[in-house]
Amino acid sequence: MSTTAGQVIKCKAAVAWEPGKPLSIQDVEVAPPRVHEVRIKIVATGVCHTDWEYLYESGKGMKFRPFPLVLGHEAAGIVESVGPEVTKFSPGDKVIPLFLPQCGECERCLSPKTNHCRKNWENTQMGVLADATSRISCKNQQLYQFLGVSSFCQYTVVPDTSLAKIRSDAPLDKVCLLGCGVSTGYGAAVNTAKVEKDSTCAVFGLGAVGLAAVMGCQVAGAKRIIGVDINPDKFEKAKFFGATECINPDDQSKPIQEVLVEETCGGVDYALECVGSPAVMNAALESTVEAWGTCVIAGWSETESMSVMVEKILMGRTLKGTYFGGWKSVQDVPKLVDDYMNQKLKLDEFITHKLPLDQINVAFDLLKGGKSIRTVISL
Amino acid sequence: MSTTAGQVIKCKAAVAWEPGKPLSIQDVEVAPPRVHEVRIKIVATGVCHTDWEYLYESGKGMKFRPFPLVLGHEAAGIVESVGPEVTKFSPGDKVIPLFLPQCGECERCLSPKTNHCRKNWENTQMGVLADATSRISCKNQQLYQFLGVSSFCQYTVVPDTSLAKIRSDAPLDKVCLLGCGVSTGYGAAVNTAKVEKDSTCAVFGLGAVGLAAVMGCQVAGAKRIIGVDINPDKFEKAKFFGATECINPDDQSKPIQEVLVEETCGGVDYALECVGSPAVMNAALESTVEAWGTCVIAGWSETESMSVMVEKILMGRTLKGTYFGGWKSVQDVPKLVDDYMNQKLKLDEFITHKLPLDQINVAFDLLKGGKSIRTVISL
Repeated sequence: MSTTAGQVIKCKAAVAWEPGKPLSIQDVEVAPPRVHEVRIKIVATGVCHTDWEYLYESGKGMKFRPFPLVLGHEAAGIVESVGPEVTKFSPGDKVIPLFLPQCGECERCLSPKTNHCRKNWENTQMGVLADATSRISCKNQQLYQFLGVSSFCQYTVVPDTSLAKIRSDAPLDKVCLLGCGVSTGYGAAVNTAKVEKDSTCAVFGLGAVGLAAVMGCQVAGAKRIIGVDINPDKFEKAKFFGATECINPDDQSKPIQEVLVEETCGGVDYALECVGSPAVMNAALESTVEAWGTCVIAGWSETESMSVMVEKILMGRTLKGTYFGGWKSVQDVPKLVDDYMNQKLKLDEFITHKLPLDQINVAFDLLKGGKSIRTVISL
Repeated sequence: MSTTAGQVIKCKAAVAWEPGKPLSIQDVEVAPPRVHEVRIKIVATGVCHTDWEYLYESGKGMKFRPFPLVLGHEAAGIVESVGPEVTKFSPGDKVIPLFLPQCGECERCLSPKTNHCRKNWENTQMGVLADATSRISCKNQQLYQFLGVSSFCQYTVVPDTSLAKIRSDAPLDKVCLLGCGVSTGYGAAVNTAKVEKDSTCAVFGLGAVGLAAVMGCQVAGAKRIIGVDINPDKFEKAKFFGATECINPDDQSKPIQEVLVEETCGGVDYALECVGSPAVMNAALESTVEAWGTCVIAGWSETESMSVMVEKILMGRTLKGTYFGGWKSVQDVPKLVDDYMNQKLKLDEFITHKLPLDQINVAFDLLKGGKSIRTVISL
């Protein structure tokens, strides 16, 4: 039993007091875990585009989420203490907190068709845990927990169905990326698109999710993997992860979908949208080949609609979405860690920057400037 | 060898001289079949909504097709003669002409993923055969062959890869419906949606395609099949084909997708759109359940776009289209005829009216007035 078990822990967090303002490093209090909850010392967290979006585009393409909150949802840490009725975790366990739970008991968890478990969903989406409160506070004010996680804090508390136990030799400052972006993109290719050997793929957007999708296409044995991005600085890394060629839509005189259809004599077998833009989603769908082309949307958009030419669908194309790459979170994240440890899956090369918590706003600047793939924050 | 082989045949056809005008019964001339072509005596033809649409909505939601033309694409007949190099058909064979070919040799025919063979496609879509001409003429003017078929004519000529040979005891005035509508709707359920046992389905639009989709859902073992139509006169027939309940969207105070989500505690497993309206397609997609809901579009639209809320896709729904129900036409149509002969598949009950060729405009009136499911024309 740790000496802090049962106590309120005082520590540092990057607090988002209000939309559109930089994060502020604050002393916060993290309450002990309640029933079926686990308190974790966060060791490392990635900074994901979604964190930025909820802070700076709140109310634009995103649904409302209450402030003040602690962002961060792509992390790894060590169990500090467990609440009542927790049986699967013990202090000292290495873990990855999950914004997508896997309760293992609901109809969805029992189905092989989906990973969309909804345990505590309504609450975690609104930034609170099962009892409708958060465990983090600052100056006696409750701080909402983003997606039920809040990894921009040295400690956090999560439901025990939103936590994956991983092997003890896993480097937390690397495997933290499996908490969101890399798992999402990689799974979009291998689970949702089910990319086949010798197929032709296009990946739209070469950030962390897109690069992971490129890696997934390569692992699946795709023959041709076309990276698409308006930032050519991403191309070198895309080729490292497996892209056979890269195209900048801004260099073309025609819409990118027409270019891709021409270049591939009819269209790609699989298109993976990793941007989150309805216009790019439409281009991705239209870049797929008639008869069996599949477009998978991995980019995020909560309030927007995309336009779909009906005939494109009637002529044999399929439009699908992926959420956390289709992985059943609790059971699959440890396997992804194994894949990393066995060199089947790359993680180190996604990490372009490492910063301490108090420089987290710099990480956002790097992200928005297109200068980083992933910055990992050490806490 | 028939006495007409090698000769031009003079017979009757319903000619569409120009868009928006009723069909005109004319004496026409049907040339002998050329290489890899077969001339058929059409015995019976269904009147499909698509025929009506190309005539009366030409240029609206439809792509341009040249006039004058002979419509009709859902038929059955008897081989009268065959052209050079035809090996699979002989005079006297009972056959169903196909607007979707199956050459058996192309990449698509060799793939289990699709039925979209493109043999002679560019030409048949423009109303001509492989040599870029039609075999039907009137007053020395070429009449285009709608989709390469033209079954509103007592004789027609089709490519030998656009023809299914069927068993000799099949009643042509029934199995003609397998040339389009019934195969499309039935296959949308069993091939494209792959409806599972005990699932919940909604079928939007209860014309021939929709009723066949209902039948497909029932054959697949669906537990709940909800028919949706704004014409309640269709409900009795829908229940005959397997609908467990029917809903008229006009009777509801909420959008139909919201009603269906409520009625099914989350949404249907499969939604089949059999109308061809982008707004209905959107409603169908949004009526499916999160996590694994599948929406299949069987209704036809060539120039329109539908709107898709991105989040609906991200949350696990799939949007697909079906064309001729996913059937590999040459090989599967004879099997569907067998299914009908073995009482596995109903056809008789789709036929609400029978008329001779010279009353074909009455068939259009019945169709547009919502008074018929299928009128079968005898030639």
